[in-house]
Amino acid sequence: MTITTARPATAADHGTDPEHPAGRRVLTGDRPTGPLHLGHYFGTLRNRVRLQRQGAELFVVVADYQVITDRDIADRLAEHSENLVIDYLATGLDPESATIFAHSAVPALNQLLLPFLSLVSIAELGRNPTVKDEIAHSRQSAVSGLMFTYPVHQAADILFCKADLVPVGQDQLPHLEVARTVARRFNERYGAGIFPRPRALLSAAPLLPGTDGSKMSKSRGNAIALAADEDETARLVRGATTDADRRITYDPAGRPGVAGLLLLAALCQDRDPGQLAEEIGDGGAAALKRTVTEAVNEHLRPIRARRAELAADRGHIRQVLRAGAERANAVADATLAEVRAAMGAVGSA
Amino acid sequence: MTITTARPATAADHGTDPEHPAGRRVLTGDRPTGPLHLGHYFGTLRNRVRLQRQGAELFVVVADYQVITDRDIADRLAEHSENLVIDYLATGLDPESATIFAHSAVPALNQLLLPFLSLVSIAELGRNPTVKDEIAHSRQSAVSGLMFTYPVHQAADILFCKADLVPVGQDQLPHLEVARTVARRFNERYGAGIFPRPRALLSAAPLLPGTDGSKMSKSRGNAIALAADEDETARLVRGATTDADRRITYDPAGRPGVAGLLLLAALCQDRDPGQLAEEIGDGGAAALKRTVTEAVNEHLRPIRARRAELAADRGHIRQVLRAGAERANAVADATLAEVRAAMGAVGSA
Repeated sequence: MTITTARPATAADHGTDPEHPAGRRVLTGDRPTGPLHLGHYFGTLRNRVRLQRQGAELFVVVADYQVITDRDIADRLAEHSENLVIDYLATGLDPESATIFAHSAVPALNQLLLPFLSLVSIAELGRNPTVKDEIAHSRQSAVSGLMFTYPVHQAADILFCKADLVPVGQDQLPHLEVARTVARRFNERYGAGIFPRPRALLSAAPLLPGTDGSKMSKSRGNAIALAADEDETARLVRGATTDADRRITYDPAGRPGVAGLLLLAALCQDRDPGQLAEEIGDGGAAALKRTVTEAVNEHLRPIRARRAELAADRGHIRQVLRAGAERANAVADATLAEVRAAMGAVGSA
Repeated sequence: MTITTARPATAADHGTDPEHPAGRRVLTGDRPTGPLHLGHYFGTLRNRVRLQRQGAELFVVVADYQVITDRDIADRLAEHSENLVIDYLATGLDPESATIFAHSAVPALNQLLLPFLSLVSIAELGRNPTVKDEIAHSRQSAVSGLMFTYPVHQAADILFCKADLVPVGQDQLPHLEVARTVARRFNERYGAGIFPRPRALLSAAPLLPGTDGSKMSKSRGNAIALAADEDETARLVRGATTDADRRITYDPAGRPGVAGLLLLAALCQDRDPGQLAEEIGDGGAAALKRTVTEAVNEHLRPIRARRAELAADRGHIRQVLRAGAERANAVADATLAEVRAAMGAVGSA
């Protein structure tokens, strides 16, 4: 689930679950921290569209509150949130079928935090690998209460809509386990079968590296944004790290830069990177980069055209978010009413 | 603020703030864990009515979610919540002027938790005396995330309605300090003057002990409930711990049982406990207890009559809670809209 990472998440969201997702509810999303790039696209966005086509019902959270989990202030939050929605729609999410909403627009979702926080101990919270990592790497005084309780916020995101499936990368399984624990404990404690235990949809997408062969990330300057134009794409690919060996081969371990470019072109053309390497033969890095630039620009052309149309009509984007918030609020209110009734709160009967 | 304690809170809520409370907004409340008793009545309830009469605008939270802060399950939550409201109205709170609402019925209030949790560190949370105490006295694994983040929940309770004044006992000042810190940091970080810094209204009410001379508490069986009838009151007073000295004197340190009874009767008759002792002279414990029983029953008679009327019309009580929730939600939604705008959330402009 990329709402946890806001990082490339290239390994996430590609379903390998044998079960057909038709009729299942899927929770996924992203933090609006900046433009989505090709790592997100091939890692998660495409798979969401595939799940949608297979008949899954998607809930996609623009996790705006969670931006401040690991930074002081949310920079250009509205702009990044709208751009995220533009990327979603441009790559094929259908707002008629998917519920796309901003986290901050659904108060009832966040109210689940109170009963959920009572179901996990501070020892359990401190054992979560992401939280543990954060505590180990900062002065303890710098770890906020929001970071510490983060897995519980995720549990609320997942459980408010009773998601059956959550696309995750391997590293995100512990987060999902907290949601499963909270669901089980709530059901046990209040004698209610309110929450299904969400299952992981483990990613099988190949990890797409950045143009320097390392993990693709906006902050490393090695990412090609979906919103980049053709010239910018050409420039980024030209600047990619390769090597002096004119013979192009697909060797991810030995030649990560070359392999990354081959994988990128192969993903765009839906073919095998090894075959592509053979075709380029001894054309060297220059031929490889020409191939990659063309493949990326070719593949993204319709997406970028759609993106430009969408970006020109911010009113429509806001309307999508409004409609999504309305639907998410209705779902959250219904879940919360069940929770309050199970707990025996006054006026809930 | 008694929402933190759910204990007698006898020392709380009696304002000594020199400032006149007219036009001020006051946040107070209780956890619905059982019937209110005379400790609550003389410690806090009476003072709320006084504040109301002086022109303060009261927000009174029935803190139902917070019942599970220190216990697994909320027992008879709706019943206790309604009884709390009956006690409030019977002792003189005016639901037309005061906003009486259940915590769980105001989702937007709880959503403030997210930005607020980002403003405090886990080191600060761990330093809070109540939390520290809880961690010291339980196995760490037993301390829930709800208990750990408890001061931040209180900050949300106080700040959602922009309360100016919070009636507290001395021991609750650290909680209020968290709310003040959160208000200041939010305003600084987001360049917004949204939250006033709430001030403590320190209690000057004398501490009313239970019928055994120790702290009055339902769980110790030494408390006289507001809802108790005259016979039950007589029985409880008859069973009170006194001593064999027939000469009645007001000596809180040396004769805590006798002094507690004298104080109780004196509070009911609005006079000095020492004078009362002199009047009883050497009538012994029997005369003292007769005086106390009569004083309590006399003082509570109109309150109990009103209580019985109110208890016979649960529909009215629920209507009070519904109206209170509506008003609290409107206030919370307005505050949250300001918070979202200050953070720059999408759709907030």
